[in-house]
Amino acid sequence: MSSLSANEDCLGWAARDASGVLSPYSFNRRNGLGDSKYPLVPGHEIVGIVQEVGSNVNRFKVGDHVGVGTYVNSCRDCEYCNDEEEVNCEKRRVSTFNGVDDDGTITKGGYSSYIVVHDRYCFRLPDAYPLASAAPLLCAGITVYSPMIRHKMNQPGKSLGVIGLGGLGHMAVKFGKAFGLNVTVLSTSISKKEEALTSLGADKFVVSSDQEQMKAEAKSLDFIIDTAAGDHPFDPYLSLLKTGGVLVLVAFPSEVKFHPASLNIGMKSVSGSLTGGTKLTREMIDFCSTHKIYPNIEVIPIHHANEALERLIKRDVRYRFVIDIENSLK
Amino acid sequence: MSSLSANEDCLGWAARDASGVLSPYSFNRRNGLGDSKYPLVPGHEIVGIVQEVGSNVNRFKVGDHVGVGTYVNSCRDCEYCNDEEEVNCEKRRVSTFNGVDDDGTITKGGYSSYIVVHDRYCFRLPDAYPLASAAPLLCAGITVYSPMIRHKMNQPGKSLGVIGLGGLGHMAVKFGKAFGLNVTVLSTSISKKEEALTSLGADKFVVSSDQEQMKAEAKSLDFIIDTAAGDHPFDPYLSLLKTGGVLVLVAFPSEVKFHPASLNIGMKSVSGSLTGGTKLTREMIDFCSTHKIYPNIEVIPIHHANEALERLIKRDVRYRFVIDIENSLK
Repeated sequence: MSSLSANEDCLGWAARDASGVLSPYSFNRRNGLGDSKYPLVPGHEIVGIVQEVGSNVNRFKVGDHVGVGTYVNSCRDCEYCNDEEEVNCEKRRVSTFNGVDDDGTITKGGYSSYIVVHDRYCFRLPDAYPLASAAPLLCAGITVYSPMIRHKMNQPGKSLGVIGLGGLGHMAVKFGKAFGLNVTVLSTSISKKEEALTSLGADKFVVSSDQEQMKAEAKSLDFIIDTAAGDHPFDPYLSLLKTGGVLVLVAFPSEVKFHPASLNIGMKSVSGSLTGGTKLTREMIDFCSTHKIYPNIEVIPIHHANEALERLIKRDVRYRFVIDIENSLK
Repeated sequence: MSSLSANEDCLGWAARDASGVLSPYSFNRRNGLGDSKYPLVPGHEIVGIVQEVGSNVNRFKVGDHVGVGTYVNSCRDCEYCNDEEEVNCEKRRVSTFNGVDDDGTITKGGYSSYIVVHDRYCFRLPDAYPLASAAPLLCAGITVYSPMIRHKMNQPGKSLGVIGLGGLGHMAVKFGKAFGLNVTVLSTSISKKEEALTSLGADKFVVSSDQEQMKAEAKSLDFIIDTAAGDHPFDPYLSLLKTGGVLVLVAFPSEVKFHPASLNIGMKSVSGSLTGGTKLTREMIDFCSTHKIYPNIEVIPIHHANEALERLIKRDVRYRFVIDIENSLK
């Protein structure tokens, strides 16, 4: 923790080239690697136990359960940093991996035996919260929680649509139910219906390719969170929003395209979002702890990472892979 | 006013078919025309002087200056009507022309010698406000004023971009300056620069096709009002918004298309809007009267309407045609 002079051998799994295939890789943390981005060590939903703390660190002690999210540094001086909304820092937000930090090092992520992080970008996890389950909170969780708070989706009785039931979508359903919302899952895959309704507690499941089902839900939703990474039409989903409704985009399809009438008639909005700041991340962790909200995970060893990526593409995961680094890299 | 039994001859100019060419046309108001939509009498920015009032009408008297906007009826019972946001009435908002009213008549617009309107959908204009200049307030004016209020664009010192400098755009500039905003006009046509800066009082003029100029304005705007009816790219304009910025769409290009990163990075929004309710329309008229905001108009006789339409397509108008019906139809 925060000891920037650490110079021990670190073992990780890295992508050696653009194929994305991961293999074991040893490296020194916080040593410059010039401009080279490969080997690239990914991983930005990271949990672990504090092994060491810097001399100025008061917020953490050895043995604490902690997490690290999608960024590990920022300017700490702009209006966004001052509001602890560091995700919007425009001067120098440093990504957890493949970013260039202040000292010139290329950041390396959580697919590795340890990480050195400034305490500001580290989050205390309650001891009682299952450690592995906490990992997806640091990206998937905050990515949906942040716009839900910003767009006031935490008003009991309002209706929420969730497009896509993956790592992000299943968390949106859980948050929605904890906020007291009426939650409709919109998915192309009927196979997820049973689990959405029983295990996740959604109120309704709509097969989005079924025009009859979609028509029956016209103008029924106050909010929609769109977590679908693949290309999809937007007009059909916008037609589900009530007057003044908001569709929040949190994924990156190749484009967003719709007819202006889909927004103009009923003064609707499409709004984007990207993870969240440290203040809101701490609030989210507290919220999950209080309401016993745990991401559904499948723990795998690092040796299965490449296979897991293939399964991910086939949507064969419910709902987030978590890599057991501690036991994989022994 | 409000006398629904009027049955006198009314003289208008009507489109006889889909060509849109207008020619003189006599008709009876409030007499059923079945399902036929032609002859179609357009016109929904209407001003005039009250000639007659219904027995239950207290808000108006003969001789009052009044205006009629884009709709002449609504359900008067839904949540939107109860809030005087009738533009969002989902049960039966009746357009000022080419709509089907409660009594089955096809509504006919302002290209005619008189109009019969329920007093709720009629607006008092101050005697001192130039009557012809008030006409564009009823659609162009409220169309930009409404989202400016809804999205809190009336905070002095904030920055506003206005895309397109036509009937709507020039009103957005005037409102923006009256709100104390820093206004940048974004236009494809350099020919409008001088007038935008001097006559309309914009602070800056950017030729939107000039990448260098656009780049210099990156992340500089709190809001953008997009009044451009023609197809245009959205990513370049979204890059001008600050973090959390909003682009409001008030026109109907054939599609809206952008990359999700244009919204996600900086949690920006695109929001639609459509004219406004009666409450806000009255407020806008008061605001224009108090701040001496007058649309720039060119008054033409109805015989020039078809020619004016051609000039409109060539963008040869500064900034709104107003038809002098009273003297044209004598």
